Amino acid sequence: MSSPEIIAVELAKAYRLLNHGPTVLVSAQHGNDKDVMAAAWACALELTPAKVTVVLDKSTKTRQLVEQSGYFALQVPCYAQIDMVHQLGTISKFDQPNKLEDCKTELFYQDELNVPLVSGSIAWLVCKVIPEPHNQQTHDLFIGSVIAAWADSRVFRDGHWYFENAAKELRSLHYIAGGTFYLIGEEVKAKL
Amino acid sequence: MSSPEIIAVELAKAYRLLNHGPTVLVSAQHGNDKDVMAAAWACALELTPAKVTVVLDKSTKTRQLVEQSGYFALQVPCYAQIDMVHQLGTISKFDQPNKLEDCKTELFYQDELNVPLVSGSIAWLVCKVIPEPHNQQTHDLFIGSVIAAWADSRVFRDGHWYFENAAKELRSLHYIAGGTFYLIGEEVKAKL
Repeated sequence: MSSPEIIAVELAKAYRLLNHGPTVLVSAQHGNDKDVMAAAWACALELTPAKVTVVLDKSTKTRQLVEQSGYFALQVPCYAQIDMVHQLGTISKFDQPNKLEDCKTELFYQDELNVPLVSGSIAWLVCKVIPEPHNQQTHDLFIGSVIAAWADSRVFRDGHWYFENAAKELRSLHYIAGGTFYLIGEEVKAKL
Repeated sequence: MSSPEIIAVELAKAYRLLNHGPTVLVSAQHGNDKDVMAAAWACALELTPAKVTVVLDKSTKTRQLVEQSGYFALQVPCYAQIDMVHQLGTISKFDQPNKLEDCKTELFYQDELNVPLVSGSIAWLVCKVIPEPHNQQTHDLFIGSVIAAWADSRVFRDGHWYFENAAKELRSLHYIAGGTFYLIGEEVKAKL
């Protein structure tokens, strides 16, 4: 694999990072406390201003940090990270305080935002929670306004994914159950 | 392709039909008036009882029918349907009253439910709207309780997808923009 280059994605195109339905990692930080979890239930909600939804179970430490800080990041992990993604989705930081070290999850920060991002992912969306107490309590559903987005230019640039020209290790993961994922596959076009 | 056989999916496993993030078709009917639209923004919301979210723009006829009837179906279309899916996502029935005939969309019904289902899809979820006026008006977000689900047994059975053993034409579609989709790809497993 060539060396990753992280490029900014304009907010009006940020929905394209999620439009094909990848499993995501959700990260959050409050003070020095941080966590990352895997989630298959994240989705674009609005084009402009860019908004997303994500389902965060009440049992998760990540949710607590999202509620405390008012921010989260969604990132699109890739095949190279499959074992880490599955571990981040099955281990709770409440049970295993060294979860992130145990999962070998490396974090970085962009633009002085205090929201941790997972190294080695292929896209990142930093989101500010739009408080919706009913949705959060009744449905575990959080709505976020996307305030910044980036992608790995080897697979996403000029507003488009280029999976077909990149290493298989950079393909997005699409979770089913029991440790089984699908990779995103072949690009196809409808007759216009 | 072998002949399709439509089998019931237990509701506790219905989330697996959407978990890998496919683009869906949303169908609805009120009286004899029916419509189908494509949507990339549909997602599982809860395992048990099974619930889903879908974003339905106020400009769509399908949304009007969902609001009038209180029901919709999400179906997972496949590569064989790519041109129809793209047409159903770009043509409005308000502008083109013969939309369904023009898109060659064939409908069928299951179990005496008055919710039209699109022939040739690979999975179907019939949903009853859980009324949430704030979400519907502010976010165009509809929440549905899944009341029945089926799949094409050539690609989904015993609670699992089997894309790898089926024809390419039966793979799910994952929309990006401008008529470009990805097919779902290779099955991969995390170390457990």
